[in-house]
Amino acid sequence: MTDCIVIGSGVAGISAALTLKANGKSFLIFGSPNLSEKIEKAEMIRNYPGLSNVTGKDFLTALKAQLSDEEIEIKSEKVGGVYAMKDKFVVLTQDQTSYESRTVILACGVESVKQIDGEETFLGRGVSYCATCDGFLYKGKTIVVFCTSKRLEHEIDYLADIAAKVYLIPMYKDVAIRRDNVEIIRKMPQKIDGAKRVEKITFATPPSQNIPKEIPVDGVFMLRECVSPAILVGGLEMKDGHVVVDRDMSTNLSGCFAAGDCTGRPYQYAKAVGEGNVAAHAVTKFV
Amino acid sequence: MTDCIVIGSGVAGISAALTLKANGKSFLIFGSPNLSEKIEKAEMIRNYPGLSNVTGKDFLTALKAQLSDEEIEIKSEKVGGVYAMKDKFVVLTQDQTSYESRTVILACGVESVKQIDGEETFLGRGVSYCATCDGFLYKGKTIVVFCTSKRLEHEIDYLADIAAKVYLIPMYKDVAIRRDNVEIIRKMPQKIDGAKRVEKITFATPPSQNIPKEIPVDGVFMLRECVSPAILVGGLEMKDGHVVVDRDMSTNLSGCFAAGDCTGRPYQYAKAVGEGNVAAHAVTKFV
Repeated sequence: MTDCIVIGSGVAGISAALTLKANGKSFLIFGSPNLSEKIEKAEMIRNYPGLSNVTGKDFLTALKAQLSDEEIEIKSEKVGGVYAMKDKFVVLTQDQTSYESRTVILACGVESVKQIDGEETFLGRGVSYCATCDGFLYKGKTIVVFCTSKRLEHEIDYLADIAAKVYLIPMYKDVAIRRDNVEIIRKMPQKIDGAKRVEKITFATPPSQNIPKEIPVDGVFMLRECVSPAILVGGLEMKDGHVVVDRDMSTNLSGCFAAGDCTGRPYQYAKAVGEGNVAAHAVTKFV
Repeated sequence: MTDCIVIGSGVAGISAALTLKANGKSFLIFGSPNLSEKIEKAEMIRNYPGLSNVTGKDFLTALKAQLSDEEIEIKSEKVGGVYAMKDKFVVLTQDQTSYESRTVILACGVESVKQIDGEETFLGRGVSYCATCDGFLYKGKTIVVFCTSKRLEHEIDYLADIAAKVYLIPMYKDVAIRRDNVEIIRKMPQKIDGAKRVEKITFATPPSQNIPKEIPVDGVFMLRECVSPAILVGGLEMKDGHVVVDRDMSTNLSGCFAAGDCTGRPYQYAKAVGEGNVAAHAVTKFV
C-alpha cells in the first residue's frame, strides 16, 4: 500500500508528485506517457514564474526531464474507478489491476468535451466509460462509441471485436479505424434516450443520407482522455462540474484530495502547480 | 488610479504581476529590487515544476529576466499602510507618497522574526514600524531600534540623526553602523513595557556588563523587511498569524486579496505562485 496515488499527469499531478517525492512519501502517479496534450498544444505561456515566454512543447520537455531526474515514472494504465474503503482507497485500472493507497490526489483535469444529454442518467444502464470493463456485455450487439482522442483507438478496436455493429462518433481528425462493422458518424447526437436502459441515440436532423434521425443501440461508450471526477469517485462532492475543496485541497471524502483544473477556474498552470503542491503537503500531514 | 497594487516581490507577488500583465490590467508592484532574500538564499529547489533542481540564485535570475521581458518594474518604496476607502484603496509609502488603486494583493510573506511581548499592545503608543513616518517624534529622546536586515541600516542612520540615544538590537551580522549615540545590544529583550505608553524594555538577565536589566526608552522602532499584514491593513481578518482567505484569495475586505506565505502554510514556491495567479484572476474579475 502506498501513501498516495496521484491521478493525472498534468502540471497539478506533476507538482504533487514532485512534492511527495521531496517529502519522502511513497506514491504512484497515473497519467499519459506524454503527460498532457493540453500542455503540448499550448502555443506560448506568458505568466508562469521562472519560465519566460515558454512554449508548451518546451515546458513539456522540461517537465519530462525533471520527472526523469527525480526518477518518477508515470503509470499509463487508465484509471477506471476509485473506491473509498474504511481507511484506504482502492484504485482500479481499466486493465483490471487494483492498487491500494492511504490517500488519493485527483488531478484529472476538466473534460472540455460537453456531456451529452442523457449521459449521466443512463450511466451504468447502458452508458460506460470503460471498453475493457464493460465491453463483454455487448457481444453481438449494436453500440455507439464516442471517442475524444486518437490515442484511444485501440479501445474502439477492442469493442469492434465484440460488438456486431459499432457507430463511431470521433471528436478528432484522421480516424485510422477501417473495419466493416464500424460506421463513422461526423455529427453529435442530441440525446441518449431510453426507458430503463439505453435504447437509442437521437439527432436533431439526420446525420447523413444513409443514417436516420434515431439509431437504436444497446450501449453507449464514452472514450475520453479524462473522466469526470464524480464518475471516477463515488460520493465525491461536486459543484458546477468541479470538485469542492477546502484551502488544503481536501474533498468531502477523508483522505481524498484534488488539485488543478478539476477544482475550478482559473484553468492556469500556476494555479494547478500551487494546488498540487498544497495537496501533497496535506497528504504528508494526513498519512 | 490603477486596477491593482501588489505588495511584495516574492514569487506570489511576481506571479500575480505576470498574470495581471497578461490580463491587460494596470498595476504597480512594491517590493525589493532584489525581489526576495528568501529565494536568493534557497540552496536548492527540488519541487518546482519546470525547473529541475534549481538553485535559489538561478531561480531569482530567471524571475528577474522574466520581469524585464514583460517590462514589469518593481517599486522599491516601502509600503507603510494600506487604507480601505469606500471604493478604492490608498497605499501610503514610508517616503510619504500615496497611490490609489481599485484593488490590492497582499503578497508580503511571513515575518520569520517573532513578535516581542508588548509590541502589539504599544503599537501607535511608542511602537512604530516606520522610521521616516514617526522618527521626528523622538527628537532628542532615547529609543530602541530592532532591525532585521542590513538593507535597512539607512533607517537606523536616519533615526540616529534625530534621537539623542539609540539602542540598536540587530538581528543580522556585520553591523556597519558606527556612531557615538548608537549602542549595540546583542540580546533580545523579554518585554516592551509601560503604562499608557512605552516606558522601558526589560531583559530576563542584564544583556551585558554596562547595561542594566531595564532600559528606559521613549520609543521603539521595529525595522523589518516585511510587516505583518494585520499591521499594514486595518481591519484585516487574521487567524494564527495568517490572512484568512477564500478559495479565490479574497480577504474579509472587499477588493483586498492575499497570496503566498502570508495566507498560511505550506511555505512553498509552487503554492505561492498558484495563489498569486488566482488572486490576479480574482482582481481581473473584480475590476
